[in-house]
Order: sequence, then C-alpha cells, then structure tokens
Amino acid sequence: MKNLIVGQSGGPTSVINASLAGVYFKAKQVGYNKVYGMLNGIEGLLQDRMVDLDIYFKNKENLELLKRTPSSFLGSCRFKLGSIKDNKDNYEKIFEILDKHSIDSMIYIGGNDSMDTVASLYDYAKEFNKKQNFIGVPKTIDNDLPITDHCPGFGSACKYIATSLREVIQDNNVYGNTKPTVTVVEIMGRHAGWLTASAALAKDETCDGVDAIYLPEVPFNMDKFVENTKALLKKKSNILIAVSEGIKNDKDQFICEIGDASLAVDSFGHKELAGCAETLCKVIKRELGVKTRSITLSTLQRAAAHLASKTDVNEAYHCGMKGASLAYKGDSGKMVIMKRVSNKPYKIQYGVFNDIHKIANVEKKVPLEWIDTKNNMVSKEVIDYIKPLIQGEVKQIYKDGLPQHINLK
Amino acid sequence: MKNLIVGQSGGPTSVINASLAGVYFKAKQVGYNKVYGMLNGIEGLLQDRMVDLDIYFKNKENLELLKRTPSSFLGSCRFKLGSIKDNKDNYEKIFEILDKHSIDSMIYIGGNDSMDTVASLYDYAKEFNKKQNFIGVPKTIDNDLPITDHCPGFGSACKYIATSLREVIQDNNVYGNTKPTVTVVEIMGRHAGWLTASAALAKDETCDGVDAIYLPEVPFNMDKFVENTKALLKKKSNILIAVSEGIKNDKDQFICEIGDASLAVDSFGHKELAGCAETLCKVIKRELGVKTRSITLSTLQRAAAHLASKTDVNEAYHCGMKGASLAYKGDSGKMVIMKRVSNKPYKIQYGVFNDIHKIANVEKKVPLEWIDTKNNMVSKEVIDYIKPLIQGEVKQIYKDGLPQHINLK
Repeated sequence: MKNLIVGQSGGPTSVINASLAGVYFKAKQVGYNKVYGMLNGIEGLLQDRMVDLDIYFKNKENLELLKRTPSSFLGSCRFKLGSIKDNKDNYEKIFEILDKHSIDSMIYIGGNDSMDTVASLYDYAKEFNKKQNFIGVPKTIDNDLPITDHCPGFGSACKYIATSLREVIQDNNVYGNTKPTVTVVEIMGRHAGWLTASAALAKDETCDGVDAIYLPEVPFNMDKFVENTKALLKKKSNILIAVSEGIKNDKDQFICEIGDASLAVDSFGHKELAGCAETLCKVIKRELGVKTRSITLSTLQRAAAHLASKTDVNEAYHCGMKGASLAYKGDSGKMVIMKRVSNKPYKIQYGVFNDIHKIANVEKKVPLEWIDTKNNMVSKEVIDYIKPLIQGEVKQIYKDGLPQHINLK
Repeated sequence: MKNLIVGQSGGPTSVINASLAGVYFKAKQVGYNKVYGMLNGIEGLLQDRMVDLDIYFKNKENLELLKRTPSSFLGSCRFKLGSIKDNKDNYEKIFEILDKHSIDSMIYIGGNDSMDTVASLYDYAKEFNKKQNFIGVPKTIDNDLPITDHCPGFGSACKYIATSLREVIQDNNVYGNTKPTVTVVEIMGRHAGWLTASAALAKDETCDGVDAIYLPEVPFNMDKFVENTKALLKKKSNILIAVSEGIKNDKDQFICEIGDASLAVDSFGHKELAGCAETLCKVIKRELGVKTRSITLSTLQRAAAHLASKTDVNEAYHCGMKGASLAYKGDSGKMVIMKRVSNKPYKIQYGVFNDIHKIANVEKKVPLEWIDTKNNMVSKEVIDYIKPLIQGEVKQIYKDGLPQHINLK
C-alpha cells in the first residue's frame, strides 16, 4: 500500500483547493492508502507538520465545500530549498520525514518557485537513490508558467476582473458628461500582463469596456501616458484605464517603486511610495486637472471564489486528478499540463511535461505581437485566448446569505 | 389618462434600477399612459432631457435585465434645487416642462438630497397651485435615511462587503504565523457607519471574522488604534481591521483629510493625502514594524450587482411599485418606507411617511449603544438587524461568462 503527501505553495487562488480536491479524490480512487496534506508547504514539511486528509474529506460534502473555498486550505509558504550542495541538511530532513511516514509520492501544487522545489526534490531522489517520486500541479493567477496552455486560477481571476470592471464602468457613467473623470484600476501580475490583459473582456455590445490597457511587457512612458489620456478625454468624459502593478519605465524600474518624479518626501527624506494606480492618478490630476479615482483590486482578485469560473474550477480539479494518476504510476520530476486541442469549441487535453527543470523559474509573458502599443490595447488574440477560460458559474453553497468555506481548524 | 416621470439621483447602488423596474411595471399596471424617465435626474429634467420608457421595457426580458443592472440606468446628478425664493426660475422651468409633456406625477428615487428635491417641488406645487404630485422612493447604500427601517441598496452592499472580507480573511491566513500582517479595509459611509458595521457579518463557525471595526459615530484616536492593534497582534498574527472612510478625530476632522501627523509634504508644500486605510497602514507600519496591506472597496461595493441580495432586489422593486401606486392615488410630498413587522421570521410592510420634510437632510446613524468602543466591535443587535437584508441570491443573466446589463444607448 502506497501513501501520498500533497502540498500547496506560493500565492493562493480561487481554485487551488479544487486541485487539492482532485488530488485527494483520485489518490484514494487509484489506491493510495494514506493521503496526507503538508501544512504551509515544504516549510511545514521540514517541521513534520502534516494532517491525514481523510479526517476532512471522507465526507463528500466537505470535498464540495473545498472546491468552493478560496486560498490554500493547507496553508502556503514562500520557501526556497536552494541548491542540494549548499542545503543538504534540509534535503536529508525532508526525506527522513517522508520515510518516517512511509510516504511514496509527493504532489506539489504551485507556480514557478514550487516547480523549482519539485525539480530539486526529484534531483535529490535520483542522486541518492530515494524511492519517492514528485509531481507538480500548476496553479497561478498570473498565468506565467510555460508549456501548459494556461494555469488553473487564471480564468477565475479574469472572470472577477472583467465582471468588476463592467460594474465599475456602469457606475462611472452615471453623471454623464458633467464631470470628466479618469479611473485607474491596478491589476496583479508583476512580470506578466495576462491578468491585466483580461480587462479587455469587459467590452461587449452594452459595455464600452476599458479605454486603455498598460502591460508590464512594454516600457511605460509617463509623458505618453498623459498625452494618451488627454486624447481619450477629448472623445469621452469617463475614462477607465487598466494598469498592471508591474509596469516599468525604459530603465527597467517599477513605476510603483520609483513613483512620480515630483514624489513627496516624508520627514525622514524617504519618498512616499503609493501604489501604481495612485501614482498615475496623481500625475493625471496634476497634468490634466480632472477628477481621478484609483482602484486596486488587491487580493480580492485572487480570492473571489464566489465568482469562480466553472471551467477553471473543473480544470483545476482535473489537473489535481491527473497529478495523482501520474504519481501512482511512479512518474517523477514532471508537471501536469493542459493542451488546447481546439478553441471553438473549446477543448482541453490533460497531459504531462517530462522535464520540470524547463518549467521551473521560466516566465511566460504576453507575446509582444498581441499588444497594441499605439492604442494601448490588446489584440483580438488575447480575448480569444482568455474567453473560454471564464465560462460558466459554480453554484456556491450559501448559508445565512454568505458563501461557506471549509477550514482546517 | 395620466402620465408619470421617474428619475434617479445621488450615488448609484446595485439595486436602484430594481426600484426603477418596480415603478415602471406598477405605473403601467395602475393605468398611467406614458411613463417617462428623466435623464440625469432633476438636472436633466431642467434641460428637458427625458425618454419614453416603453421603448426599453415593453420587452419583459429587458425589465429582468434592468433589475440586474447596477448603477443608475437613467443617469444621476448631484444637483440641489435650493430655496424657492432664490431659485424661482428653475422651479418655473421644471413645471413648464412637466406641463408641456402633460406629466401629472413624478417619482424620485434617491437619498437625503433627493428627498429634499421632492419636498421642495411639493412645496412649490402647493404654493402655486400646480396639479403635479411628487413621491420619493428611498435608495442609499449608506442606510442613513430616517423613518424607514432600512434603505434599498444597503443589503446588497453588506452582502458584498461580508463576502469579500470572508474571502480576504481566507487569503490572509495562508502563511500562518510566519509573517504578522495587518490588513485595513476601507468601507464607504462618510457620516454613518452602517456599511462598515456589516463587516461583523463575515464571522461564523468557519471564519474568525474581522478583528476590529471603527465607525464614524465615535471619535477616532490614533494612539488607541495603535495600542489596540498591538494587543491584537499578541493574540494572532493576521489582523483584519474594517474602517469607515468617514472616521474623524475628537476635533471632528476627517482622518482621510488630515492624515497622519508625520505626513509627507509634496514639492509645493501640500500634504500628500492618502486614503483613510492607507494612512492607518502607514502609521501601523511605522509604529509596530509589521507588514500592512490596505484595501479600499471603492465603487465596487455599490456596483456589485453580481452578488446582490435577493431580499434587497425584491424590496427595491416593491418600493418602486409602492411609489407608483401612491403617485396614482394622488399622494404628494411623501416617501415610501419599510416597516419591519418581525425579525424572526423577517417580515416587511411597505408603507408611506406623510411628511417628506422630516426625512430630507436628516441622517440616521448607528446607535451608540450598538457600538462596543472597548473592543472596537459592534453589538449583536447590529448583526440581527442586518442579517435578514443579505439573504438570497439573484440568478444573474450571463453571456460569454460575464453578467449582462442594459444601457440606454
């Protein structure tokens, strides 16, 4: 009888728990005896912190609740194992703990850094003839993992962003042309602009959509930004601009870190850094004299399970299941991937990529040819790519008017 | 055959269009011939800007879409008519326009200022023997209108706030005790703390809820705030604080306007004002040295129709219907109100308040005895009062994965 341990790592998403549900369900189905959950990822594993998931999920209702619970049920970490050579103690300790609990397989659900962990553990097991095998299951709202068509977590964040923007645009328009206003919405994604690009989906026959989109893939120029916004204000009076938190100038400096040239200085002489959207609003207000409003979607965009995409939840669940199947087969050092077989109708195949080293620490960005730098917009390809991922709604389990979640305690 | 005109005014909500739908439906049912919508409230009426609502809502599907569309379908304004004595021209013009279109009744959906408009038009009609009658229908997310048990729009905003906070709390907890973090969430309500108080609803068996709530009804003391937050951090490492945008110090100054004492000064010597939550985060970071995150729910909280409370949508619709019935009966200078007949089970009666002058410009605040200033929390009475208002979900009309709205153009 084999035993498995599963962990979650990196920033949470609306559907990372659906992947955990998939792992648990399939692991039990294929024949794993114990399915453990490591608490707070590899950092918790190093401290021998784990739970037997049967306690929580033998009850099928709880598994349904898990699929609808945002954030990482098992807790997360941002812990880097580092090289085997320099951190041998930690590696030895991990394998000691795995041996102690007779654990044969490990599944790690996460993004770039997490896949690096999987790769390192695989390398160590190979070098030192350990029996354990290691499989990665992708997750990230940023959609920046290579090779897989897209990442679980991304679609739900896009659905939340496009819906919220549509509602904000409705709200913006109530005072008509009487009071020109520029609203800047800041969206997550430090290096890859996928999420910010999803702002383009807000547009349809009844919604004008956003007026400009600024991605981190192309250098941001403040003067051009002001000029473009001024031009937009000549055409309509309520402007909505979507901007990535990760926009950088042509010297590769983050706007949110350098701020505006005229930035205020606090009593210690430090620049007072505002968020990216707020910085842009200050510049627009000063240069164009119009009312501004900055909105930062913050962690809401990655935690809004109440608006999760059904497609995304299902895919996250299936990626988890696929991971458990691969693990039971004895595969190691590999990551579950999705291949888009066709776009209309949208069809996905769950596959496996054999060399996780080629995934770890590689960032997939929005292709430059999909970015319209003249109009500060994204191309139709982006919309065609994202649209299938936001389809469908998950029936939430409400109690007393609020969505229910499941927690460890 | 009588004709009616309806308008919307003040800040929009998720359900103000449900009231418009109720007015239109009932007005046609009771026998009004034309039902006009004034564009951008009384300001648009002064410019003779109106539409025949049959064009949009003879189609029943559109009326269902209207119930699910946030913000004000007819547009809004923040226009004060002022005293009759000093603004006689405007009053005369309005009645000229009403006469020109053979309009007999007017319904105005709005908050405090809008009820002031209804009162003034009623007074003018009485003084100058005009045939038109005027009815107010309440709306405001702030819930600050007196006499009515609560206001349409409030329940949906509460549902959004409590749901979002629950999701943010899930997200906050992923890193366990490794990194103490204080998150401050800023909630709307400049003078009344009702919306901020709804943060208390996030708590249940599976969710710790928010750790502190600061309302504008009691003076805010920065030193005490730091002290209380420090005490909270001794008990747990992820703190979530809900704070009203309208908190003021004991000199009656808004914290968001005066900022922190050590506030940075820009190149012109002006204090750089941040939002209220951001100011508090800066202070906590400086005084306690912990990581902070500010989240401002901004217009999202009043526009999130995708998470509207079914109870709220139904009540908004019924308030609109009641308004049309009263108008057809010839009532004037009155506002539709809701009376809570019982709380368990929750039961509402739709009534009328006869003297709108007593409603206009009066603000209903959270009773001081419902605020626990020692623990910076609200009492059980607040939760009992709000809970029935967030019950039920509205089935949205989705197309291509996003909720559909209806617009004038």
